[in-house]
Amino acid sequence: MTAFSDLDHTHDPAAQSWVASANEAGTDFPIQNLPYGLFVRAGRNESPRVGVAIGDQVLDLRAAAAAGRWSSAEQVALQPLAQGDLNAFMALPAAQRRALRQALFAALLVGSKQEGALRACLLAQSEAQMLVPCRIGDYTDFYTGIHHATTVGKLFRPDNPLLPNYKWVPIGYHGRSSSIGVSGQDVRRPLGQLMPPGATAPERAPCKRLDYELELGVFVAGGNALGATIPMERADEHLFGLTLLNDWSARDVQAWEYQPLGPFLAKNFATTISPWIVTAEALEPFRCAFAHPEQDPQPLPYLDSEKNRAAGGYAIELEVWLQTEQMRAAGQAPTRLMRSNFGESAYWTLAQMLVHHASNGCNLQPGDLLGTGTQSGAKPEEGGSLLELSLGGKQALSLPNGETRTFLQDGDTVILRGFAAKDGARRIGFGDCAATVLPARV
Amino acid sequence: MTAFSDLDHTHDPAAQSWVASANEAGTDFPIQNLPYGLFVRAGRNESPRVGVAIGDQVLDLRAAAAAGRWSSAEQVALQPLAQGDLNAFMALPAAQRRALRQALFAALLVGSKQEGALRACLLAQSEAQMLVPCRIGDYTDFYTGIHHATTVGKLFRPDNPLLPNYKWVPIGYHGRSSSIGVSGQDVRRPLGQLMPPGATAPERAPCKRLDYELELGVFVAGGNALGATIPMERADEHLFGLTLLNDWSARDVQAWEYQPLGPFLAKNFATTISPWIVTAEALEPFRCAFAHPEQDPQPLPYLDSEKNRAAGGYAIELEVWLQTEQMRAAGQAPTRLMRSNFGESAYWTLAQMLVHHASNGCNLQPGDLLGTGTQSGAKPEEGGSLLELSLGGKQALSLPNGETRTFLQDGDTVILRGFAAKDGARRIGFGDCAATVLPARV
Repeated sequence: MTAFSDLDHTHDPAAQSWVASANEAGTDFPIQNLPYGLFVRAGRNESPRVGVAIGDQVLDLRAAAAAGRWSSAEQVALQPLAQGDLNAFMALPAAQRRALRQALFAALLVGSKQEGALRACLLAQSEAQMLVPCRIGDYTDFYTGIHHATTVGKLFRPDNPLLPNYKWVPIGYHGRSSSIGVSGQDVRRPLGQLMPPGATAPERAPCKRLDYELELGVFVAGGNALGATIPMERADEHLFGLTLLNDWSARDVQAWEYQPLGPFLAKNFATTISPWIVTAEALEPFRCAFAHPEQDPQPLPYLDSEKNRAAGGYAIELEVWLQTEQMRAAGQAPTRLMRSNFGESAYWTLAQMLVHHASNGCNLQPGDLLGTGTQSGAKPEEGGSLLELSLGGKQALSLPNGETRTFLQDGDTVILRGFAAKDGARRIGFGDCAATVLPARV
Repeated sequence: MTAFSDLDHTHDPAAQSWVASANEAGTDFPIQNLPYGLFVRAGRNESPRVGVAIGDQVLDLRAAAAAGRWSSAEQVALQPLAQGDLNAFMALPAAQRRALRQALFAALLVGSKQEGALRACLLAQSEAQMLVPCRIGDYTDFYTGIHHATTVGKLFRPDNPLLPNYKWVPIGYHGRSSSIGVSGQDVRRPLGQLMPPGATAPERAPCKRLDYELELGVFVAGGNALGATIPMERADEHLFGLTLLNDWSARDVQAWEYQPLGPFLAKNFATTISPWIVTAEALEPFRCAFAHPEQDPQPLPYLDSEKNRAAGGYAIELEVWLQTEQMRAAGQAPTRLMRSNFGESAYWTLAQMLVHHASNGCNLQPGDLLGTGTQSGAKPEEGGSLLELSLGGKQALSLPNGETRTFLQDGDTVILRGFAAKDGARRIGFGDCAATVLPARV
């Protein structure tokens, strides 16, 4: 990725779009954002289309490629998108992806000559049924949230919460691709083997300790060949963009099954992501000095670089909201359970995750998804899961309507939200990552 | 899957093919086998084709679909295969897959009227470059080898080798799809973080304890919808067939990285499978009373069935062979390191693996791959990995040419072999699963 240049106006906070809703204060999708998603139009039997969110609208790139006046270079970059193939676009060189962002920005800017042609390519987001945005070949979940790792570790090892490898190895494990869904889905409470304390045999029953985990999802751009590695200096080129990610977790299943090979059925029944991939380019103004600039111990050289130390982080505000069935029935809005900031919660950077993953020659591919692990803040009330907020289920949370929760109940809607904002930059958001718990099928 | 019927002649041990090499005693691919694979013809720039191995030949199903005289029902089942899409064929109902096997058997039988048309559709296996046979959406590795689990457990916990969950939960974890390759490949020795005993900081270095693991690979036929489960009574319908599988392992990387979330970079740099998928139908004569008929404790009801107890196993002989660079240079044949039998080494059956995997609603898909875990025999000399055969690296193996091994050295070729044989049935084999270790890229 080339450095942010003065020639790139896509971060200009004063820029306005001819799509009026993109200029409203509260929108997640101003012209400075321009995230990609995959959708079908409601009520049509058609193959999925790639779109760009702008205000409360979607710019349909299939239609836009045909209608707009694009340069030949722009047409080349638009072609895979016009065909609904986000993976092929992800595989393009970073400079080409950046150039298309600039072209889309110019096309949607107030005064653009393309306004007339592109107006007909807009669709209300309410009319778009969003899909998983690309083919996710492999899904890997990391464990970069140091406050989360510490708090969860304390539940098991009060005196030694962080394992000896934590500050050397960006810990990760492989997850399930097939059960990844997008915001708006329902998630069925899983059945599983539970071993109650003191019991001599497990029982098969609906999970009693169903939980969410607040994460970011990282989409890989260009990959690396099997046997090759990715140096830190080039890691950013391999980062396409981010979504919110809810790593649903069955805590009681996890406790019984996870030794010695890690989580399996406790996690693979569902993962929910937000549908719009906010690109690395859009997030550039929010890069920050890494929250752990003096990573101690100093990482091994393959995980270390000047740039990573100077601006390896992304300052992204993250929130979890809950709306229970009772709240919904009473017309009450969701309530916020916590807030954290990714720039402060992650011990390892996205670059370090990518580089470590490929450091043994494992081949990453365009569209692969990496979860960051749960991003809890440093304070107890900033836990990114109910396991943390309820102290392992020992202390129930009180909700504004008088209900309480240790873990999730049927009918609960969990909503992850995220945004980046700072002085001198236009706030950009991720859109909701929401899903509702259905009762177990017994 | 319907029960084996007298009407199904595909297991007749006396049956002979007009492909002469299929009738030779030592072949892995007699007419009773008929495994599926994916290939491109050497020197041609063409899209991959599905073929069936017969003797030392491949029946090209693209050509065969066009050339043969097939019934309309057979044409329907052949269509996805003619298009090179094994996944779509896997998704067909079991009865349709079985019917096509019978049609292929009849077409290749001595005296078949199709001989004339199909002779032109044969290709020497030596002219076929084999590929990963289908799109593997997700790859899961299980841990069903009880002798392996016990031996490896003893290295860490001499008094309590098997964890309390082992005989309740078919332990598994998600692996990496992108790095799965087929027999004949080279595998680059990975670099990784190693924490030498007594050291205070890890080093990044080439893996010093590179190992293989002898497994079977299980390809899923029809899947289950997200949120649905698979009952034991129908598990066999979801089993497409088996390959050999080498779960390459970097033991020193694994020891340092695997807590608390399981193996990651220690495993995901490579997995090698044999290219021919031997179907469940071909293996029916070798089903056996399960080696652990009195699974103790009795499995929970969702993992238990009459049929599973009576004939849940598959009696498959498994072997590991090694040819070092020095042996190859001297023209010496590979040497056999061990032998085991899958019917005796696995605590859990394939049906139990499939059912457990889907028991929380996790959606399996056609073409998904499940590893069985390392299949070591009960005796020390039957270990399915060097970790076991060398007692954790403490006792080197002596090879016939005077070399020794604790773990793999560069230039070593590891060859897995497998076959099923018994009185009254024609022996069928898997073909080699071979790969050679390349030096680390430093």
